Amino acid sequence: MSLIVQKYGGTSVGTVDRILEVARRVVKTVQLGNSLVVVLSAMGKTTDGLVKLAKEISVNPNKREMDMLLSTGEQVSIALLSMALQEMGQPAISLTGAQVGIVTEAAHTRARILRIDPNRLQTQLNRGKVVVVAGFQGIADAGELEITTLGRGGSDTTAVALAAALRADRCEIYTDVPGILTTDPRLVADAQLMDEITCDEMLELASLGAKVLHPRAVEIAKNYGVPLVVLSSWSDAPGTRVVSPPPPSARPLEGLELAKAVDAVEFDLDQAGVSLLRLPDRPGVAARLFGAIAQQNLDVDLIIQSIHEGNTNDIAFTVRRNSLNQAVAVADAIVPALGKNSRPELGEPEVKVEERPIAKVSIAGAGMIGRPRVAAQMFNTLADAGINIQMISTSEVKVSCTIDAAECDRAVAELCKAFDVANSPVGLRSASHKPPAVRAVALDLNQARLAIRQLPDRPGVAAKLFGLLAEENISVDTII
Amino acid sequence: MSLIVQKYGGTSVGTVDRILEVARRVVKTVQLGNSLVVVLSAMGKTTDGLVKLAKEISVNPNKREMDMLLSTGEQVSIALLSMALQEMGQPAISLTGAQVGIVTEAAHTRARILRIDPNRLQTQLNRGKVVVVAGFQGIADAGELEITTLGRGGSDTTAVALAAALRADRCEIYTDVPGILTTDPRLVADAQLMDEITCDEMLELASLGAKVLHPRAVEIAKNYGVPLVVLSSWSDAPGTRVVSPPPPSARPLEGLELAKAVDAVEFDLDQAGVSLLRLPDRPGVAARLFGAIAQQNLDVDLIIQSIHEGNTNDIAFTVRRNSLNQAVAVADAIVPALGKNSRPELGEPEVKVEERPIAKVSIAGAGMIGRPRVAAQMFNTLADAGINIQMISTSEVKVSCTIDAAECDRAVAELCKAFDVANSPVGLRSASHKPPAVRAVALDLNQARLAIRQLPDRPGVAAKLFGLLAEENISVDTII
Repeated sequence: MSLIVQKYGGTSVGTVDRILEVARRVVKTVQLGNSLVVVLSAMGKTTDGLVKLAKEISVNPNKREMDMLLSTGEQVSIALLSMALQEMGQPAISLTGAQVGIVTEAAHTRARILRIDPNRLQTQLNRGKVVVVAGFQGIADAGELEITTLGRGGSDTTAVALAAALRADRCEIYTDVPGILTTDPRLVADAQLMDEITCDEMLELASLGAKVLHPRAVEIAKNYGVPLVVLSSWSDAPGTRVVSPPPPSARPLEGLELAKAVDAVEFDLDQAGVSLLRLPDRPGVAARLFGAIAQQNLDVDLIIQSIHEGNTNDIAFTVRRNSLNQAVAVADAIVPALGKNSRPELGEPEVKVEERPIAKVSIAGAGMIGRPRVAAQMFNTLADAGINIQMISTSEVKVSCTIDAAECDRAVAELCKAFDVANSPVGLRSASHKPPAVRAVALDLNQARLAIRQLPDRPGVAAKLFGLLAEENISVDTII
Repeated sequence: MSLIVQKYGGTSVGTVDRILEVARRVVKTVQLGNSLVVVLSAMGKTTDGLVKLAKEISVNPNKREMDMLLSTGEQVSIALLSMALQEMGQPAISLTGAQVGIVTEAAHTRARILRIDPNRLQTQLNRGKVVVVAGFQGIADAGELEITTLGRGGSDTTAVALAAALRADRCEIYTDVPGILTTDPRLVADAQLMDEITCDEMLELASLGAKVLHPRAVEIAKNYGVPLVVLSSWSDAPGTRVVSPPPPSARPLEGLELAKAVDAVEFDLDQAGVSLLRLPDRPGVAARLFGAIAQQNLDVDLIIQSIHEGNTNDIAFTVRRNSLNQAVAVADAIVPALGKNSRPELGEPEVKVEERPIAKVSIAGAGMIGRPRVAAQMFNTLADAGINIQMISTSEVKVSCTIDAAECDRAVAELCKAFDVANSPVGLRSASHKPPAVRAVALDLNQARLAIRQLPDRPGVAAKLFGLLAEENISVDTII
C-alpha cells in the first residue's frame, strides 16, 4: 500500500462538477489500494473575487487581514470535496492549515513553512480516511493560531511539504496541462511533453515551470527526495516525472522550507573576457556573433548585453582562457560585418579584450529562489571586501560575478563565511563540467525591464541597488 | 472608559458600502472613549450561497464539513471590517472563533459555548485595538482545533457570551429593525417600539424576539446580568434595552452556555379541569367560550384544544379549584349557544368535569431553549414512575403537565432528581403569582402542525414521541 499526496489546483476544483470529478479520481486511487492525502487550492476565481473585495476597501490592505481573508478560499474547497467523497461512501476529513499544524514564518502573504507535525494526518490516515488539506496556508504561531498564507505556488508547496513530512511514496500535482512541455505550447505548436525532468532542470527553467509547478515545491522535492509527478486533471496520461538523486542524508523536518539559501560557492580562474562595444542595435547581431564563435567550437560562459542611449549595444562574454585569442579573432572578423551603428558620432563598433585576468565567482543553491536578498548579500559581501564586480549573471538558482582574478581567493573566503558554506569551495568545476544539452526552453512574458544608467563603477553599487530591491521583495531576473 | 461589545448581523455587513458604514459607527464609538469588541455575521447571502453549494453535492452533508464550510463566511466579514477600520486609521485585528478560544460542545452545527478565555481579547484591547470577532463559531477541541458552529442565533450568542466573559459594560445588538416591537410591524401597522423589556418577557416571546435577538443570547444575558440593547444599524435611535435583575451571585464562566436546563420544578394542586367535547370547528368558538368565562373574572390556566376527524374540537382548560363550579356553570350555559357540529352522528357538544383531583407539575428554566430533549426527559421521568400525563403545555422556557393529584408528590420528587433541582420545589406559586399584563404579542408563521391520532392513553407515550423528535433535534412548540 502506497501513501500518495495529490494536489489539485483552482481550475481542477472550479465548479461542483469538477469537484465531483476530482472525488471520483480520489476514490479510484484509494480503490487501487493507496492511502491518500489531497491538497486543494481555492475554487477557480474565488481568490480573485476576495482580492477584489479587499481592494474595494483599501488600496494596500493589511497583510495579516489578507491572509485571514484569502485562507477561506481553500477552506471552502476542502469542505466540499470531503462532502463529495463521503457521498461516494469514501470516509474523508478536511483539515485547515492550522488543524494540520503547518507552522510557518510570521511573514504574512509569503510565509515559508517551518515544520509540519505529521501525527495528526497519520492518525486520520490510520482510520482509513482520505485527508483533504487546505493548500497555501499555515499558522505562524501555534499558540495564537495566527493564520498565514504561503504566497505564489503555495498549494504546490503544501503538497510537496506534506509528502516530505509523511515520507510519502509519491506526490502528484494535477494541473490543466498534460505535464512539463519543452516550451510554451501557446507559442510553439509542436511543444513536446517530457516524460522526465530533473529538479535542477526544473529550477533553471523556473519561469516556464512555475506555470505548472512552483520552484519552491521543486526545491523541497529536491531537498527531501520526494518523488514528484506533474499530470493532467483531465486525462489519465502519465504526465512528467520530476526526479532527483536521493539527498545524501535524511534532512530533518525542522526548517522544512528554510534550507540554507546557498549550498556552494564556486570559482573559476580559467576565464577571459571580451567586450564588443557600440554594436548596432539590430535583430540578428547576437546570433551572427555567437554563431560565428560556435563554428569555432568555443564554449562561451557568461554573456551580458548592455544597452546605451543612441541605439547601440555592448556585448561582453567570457570564454576559457586558452580560447581567448581565437574568440578575439572571430570577434574582430565579424564586427565589421555586423554593420555600422546609426549615429556615427557615438563612435564605431570595437572589440576590446579585458587585459587583466578575471575570475568568475558564483553562489549556487535552490534555497535562493524567491529570496532576492541573497543576491544583494553576495554583492554586499564583495563590496565590504572592497572587491569590484565587473559582470553579473543571475538565474533562479545561481548568481555569478566576474571580478579581478587577484581578488578571487579573498572573494571565495568571504562568500563561504557569509553564506556558511564549508570551506572547500568548488573551483574550476566549469572546466570539466559538461552542461546538459538544451532540453527545454522557457519564455517568461511576465518581466519588466528597468535600466539604470551611468552608475559609478565601484564596489558596493550593485549591493546597494539589490539591497533596496530586496527590501521591497523584488526578485531580479537578469542583470545586464 | 466603557467596554462595549457590538454585534452586526448579515444585512448590516451585506456589501462593501455597509461594511464601511459599520466601520464609521465603530470609529465613532471608539472616539467617544470606549473600548470595543465587534462581532460579525457572514455577509448577506453568503451563508445561503455556501449551503446551496453543499446541497449540490449532498442532500444531507456531513455536519462537521458543514461547519468547516460555513465558518468561512464570518471569516471574510471580519477581515474586511478590520481592513476598513485600519484604512480609517483605527487599529483593529480580526479573530476567528478558534483564535479567540471560544470552546464549545462537540455538537457540530448546533454547539453550545462551554467557555471563553478572555485573555487574548483583553491583550488586544489593551493595545488599543478594536477586536473584530467572527460570530457563530468556535472550536470543540482546543488541541485538534475542531471547528464548530453554534446554529441559529449563533452570532447573537457569541456577542453576549463575549460580553459576559469580558464583563463588558454593554452589549449592543445591531439589526435592521429599530428594536423590539410590541408585535410584528409587517402584520400590525401600529406596532410600538418598546424602550425596555425584561429577559423573561423576551424569552416568553421567543418566537417574536428570535427575529431580532435569539433566546440563547437572552438566556446568557439573564444568567450573567449582561446589559443588552437591541438597536438599528440604520439610525441613531436608542433601541430597546433588554434588562434583568442582576443574578444572585457571580456565575463561573465554565459551562457558559450550559447552565442547568431546568431551574425549578413547580407544582400546583389547586387546579381543576373542565373539558368541552365535540365543539363545532368554527372561528370564534374559543373566543366566545373564554370571553364568557373572563366576564366572571375566572383565571384560566392551561388551555388545550385538540382536533378530531369530522370537524369537531375538544377544548380542555384548568381553573382554580374554588372556581370550578362557576366555570362549569358558564360552560354549560355557553355550549348550546356555540351551535351544533356539522355531523350529528359524531355526537352533540358536551361539558365534562374531571372528577378526580388533578395537579399541574411544571419544569421551568431558560436553559431548555433549543433542547427538545428536556421535554422528552420530563415525560420519560413521569413514564418511568408510572404516572400518566393528561394535558401538556409547552413554551420556550416551561413545560407543564396535568396529572392525577395523588401522584403529585412522587412526580415532583422524581423531576427534582432527574433535573438536579434542589429538593424544595416551588408549589402553589401560581396562587399568589400575578402575571404581567400582556405587553407584546408574538406571531410565528414558521410552524408546521403534526397530528398523531388515536394514541393510547398510558404512561410513556408522550415520552417516546418526544424522545424520537429530540433525536432528530426537532423542537416542539405547542402540544395539543
